[in-house]
Amino acid sequence: MRTRKQAGARTAPQSFVSQATSFLAGTTSPSLLLETYLERIDMQEKQLRAFVHMEADAARLDAKASSARWREGRPLSPIDGMPVGIKDIIETANMPTGQGSHMWAGFESRRDAATVQGLRDAGAIVVGKTVTAEFANAVLLAETVNPHDPARTPGGSSSGSAAAVGAGFLPVALGSQLVGSTLRPSSYCGCIGFKPSVGAINRGGSYDYYSQSCVGFIGAALEDVWVTGREIAKRVGGDPGYGGLGGPDALPAHRRPARLLVLETDGWSRATPNAKEEFEAAAARLEDAGVILVRRGHDSALEDFEQMISGIGRLTDTILAWESRWPLGSYIGREPDSLSPSILSRFRESSDLTQEDYIAALEERQAMRDTYAELLRDADGALTLAATGAAPVGFATTGDPSFNIPASILGVPAIGLPLLSDEGMPLGLQIMGKIDEDAAMIGIAHWVEAWFQSRCRVE
Amino acid sequence: MRTRKQAGARTAPQSFVSQATSFLAGTTSPSLLLETYLERIDMQEKQLRAFVHMEADAARLDAKASSARWREGRPLSPIDGMPVGIKDIIETANMPTGQGSHMWAGFESRRDAATVQGLRDAGAIVVGKTVTAEFANAVLLAETVNPHDPARTPGGSSSGSAAAVGAGFLPVALGSQLVGSTLRPSSYCGCIGFKPSVGAINRGGSYDYYSQSCVGFIGAALEDVWVTGREIAKRVGGDPGYGGLGGPDALPAHRRPARLLVLETDGWSRATPNAKEEFEAAAARLEDAGVILVRRGHDSALEDFEQMISGIGRLTDTILAWESRWPLGSYIGREPDSLSPSILSRFRESSDLTQEDYIAALEERQAMRDTYAELLRDADGALTLAATGAAPVGFATTGDPSFNIPASILGVPAIGLPLLSDEGMPLGLQIMGKIDEDAAMIGIAHWVEAWFQSRCRVE
Repeated sequence: MRTRKQAGARTAPQSFVSQATSFLAGTTSPSLLLETYLERIDMQEKQLRAFVHMEADAARLDAKASSARWREGRPLSPIDGMPVGIKDIIETANMPTGQGSHMWAGFESRRDAATVQGLRDAGAIVVGKTVTAEFANAVLLAETVNPHDPARTPGGSSSGSAAAVGAGFLPVALGSQLVGSTLRPSSYCGCIGFKPSVGAINRGGSYDYYSQSCVGFIGAALEDVWVTGREIAKRVGGDPGYGGLGGPDALPAHRRPARLLVLETDGWSRATPNAKEEFEAAAARLEDAGVILVRRGHDSALEDFEQMISGIGRLTDTILAWESRWPLGSYIGREPDSLSPSILSRFRESSDLTQEDYIAALEERQAMRDTYAELLRDADGALTLAATGAAPVGFATTGDPSFNIPASILGVPAIGLPLLSDEGMPLGLQIMGKIDEDAAMIGIAHWVEAWFQSRCRVE
Repeated sequence: MRTRKQAGARTAPQSFVSQATSFLAGTTSPSLLLETYLERIDMQEKQLRAFVHMEADAARLDAKASSARWREGRPLSPIDGMPVGIKDIIETANMPTGQGSHMWAGFESRRDAATVQGLRDAGAIVVGKTVTAEFANAVLLAETVNPHDPARTPGGSSSGSAAAVGAGFLPVALGSQLVGSTLRPSSYCGCIGFKPSVGAINRGGSYDYYSQSCVGFIGAALEDVWVTGREIAKRVGGDPGYGGLGGPDALPAHRRPARLLVLETDGWSRATPNAKEEFEAAAARLEDAGVILVRRGHDSALEDFEQMISGIGRLTDTILAWESRWPLGSYIGREPDSLSPSILSRFRESSDLTQEDYIAALEERQAMRDTYAELLRDADGALTLAATGAAPVGFATTGDPSFNIPASILGVPAIGLPLLSDEGMPLGLQIMGKIDEDAAMIGIAHWVEAWFQSRCRVE
């Protein structure tokens, strides 16, 4: 477990991908690297509880084959040999998929999800399944803790993936984001969290069926996060009917944005004073570099948009409640006692809804998407916090998703960079991009990260 | 098994839904009706082989409960007590889901698919799982025969659903259509086949993930087919992000179309001479009623569209091949020997494709959709055959889907009515509608059916 002190004072870790030359030269190997990770897991997993299931021996065999491919100069991809964790709502042929639910514990899917197939075809090594909140929802039935402070939640619902990456157990793990399940835990655990545009990564075999849900990437290094997304998309594409994550195979080059909108969202009023100060200091640093930040007070269109998205938690609830009717209805019909009260209550909420209510909600969401696209004609992206502050102490909640709801509702790409801190814990700075322009947003994130690392932190 | 002679000389059978008054009065009941169906199944299933799995006793229990609800005047819906069959790519909690594949035989999904949940919530009785071609694809590994001639194929991939309804085993069964899997077998087996607009029925828990695939309804009576679709959509909606099948709860009223486009498609050159004659006789009957039929020879926009969609089998192949990478890649990686050569070959075809090829195919498809929508501004729908002729003799193929590809690619609703005949076998007349205007198309079908029944057939 890292000490609290290190959090926030992050320097970008070496990416897996950048070690290609060493793998080719044989000065290191996926096998050696895997042992380092497994050793950390061995020492700390008992306290962290990030995994539901591990297959260390299978991973060692896969690493051996990968190491040989590198030595022979024929890796399957830049992520050949990279250890990965898989959120336990995503199917794996050789490990059960339990969805964080008592009802689904031990379920054998008999196949890999699309993302897992893509990862394996690219040579990545599936080390284990990571803890998820029940059905990737709000309630964490497992006892995963935050790697920076075991008295705090890791966030959710991609709890185990963020905790494992934050603890240095893995360079990359898969999550998902329907509301805030990738960026929030990434912020709490000091990871990079990338939620692509809706549809950009094939969700086949992932148990998140909602219209705005996405596979999420949680990683220690931006390069690994991006390359992993691209290697998957090249092999298994996006959701059916979508082109899939596009852009260069390698990490997009630095791209200094000319203009960014500062989005307060419903989160601002809930953020801690220190989180706000951290954000303002970060904003000032960007302005130092010549980035124009557009504020709601000085731009009436932005002000209108902020008002439009104020209270979108309610809209999210309506959409999710309707889209939860199945499969929750089927589960409740069979085994109501094995479901949490929170899930039962979500299902009950859905029973008053009609098709017409849902259609109205979809129209409201589309209007927000259109307005956001219009706003971003004159800007390169939007800037906000990734969470309202440090991970909450205790485990009663997985934290407040207010800052994450907008990108989820809008279907646009978002990335959280662990560049800020609160209460000595990590805190993410969030950049939101334009729909299907994920690579451009990653280029901005790349530049922001470099800019922040180029000088001492402003405090 | 019906005799050959009856085929073609169809009169609309009594719908389940129309018996509500008798159920309420207790002069008949879902239980009595179920026994009639089970008796037919008992006598003929050995030859027909429409089912993979049956739960007659569970169905009897459900029918008893439904009969009681009707007697007490509180049915759950107009289809409360209606026996249904479920294509075996659709999950059922109490029966395995085998996908017509040796690899998946006996798979327990632990839950109901969205459609099955919707059916059960509406009180419908799931009698059994019906035979599907392997992965709802081209190869029928089971030995289902055509109910009108046991020497002929029932068509595919919804083989068992069409055979069961055609044999009078069930009033309605669920299928799916990606290329021609609902309308073609319905035509061969003398059923009504309804493929809704893309996204109109929630496919959750159905193993057809393709971007143009739909749940299909196969029935003996138009009223049952429509009401079943609506009762499902009201309860579990469409695919996430879609409003779901809309329109009146009851069968839409007769709607005589003013203008219909006659679409030849690639099918016309492959249709039997008799099938073409039957179609022309049907066209003449519609013109008798004052319907204006627009022909490619007299309308340059229609001629251009026919040329645009000529050869779309190739476009379908590209889209399907890319979208098949997952899950076929995962299956092949695990158990290649349990897959048919046809599936292995489809997967091999996909290996040369790139994301860019797929994106180009999606754009080509979208251009066709836009052109069709433009064409239909001045028409109420399109008219064509549902199949190239009678069900082929033998079982080497499930038949030619040429007439079904356009509606599938275009994502528009289509309905096949078993009003024609070829070789003494049933043959469907197909009406294609406008996207998301399923109810209007069904209104036209309702009128066409009544018009054809109003006088002797023109031969």
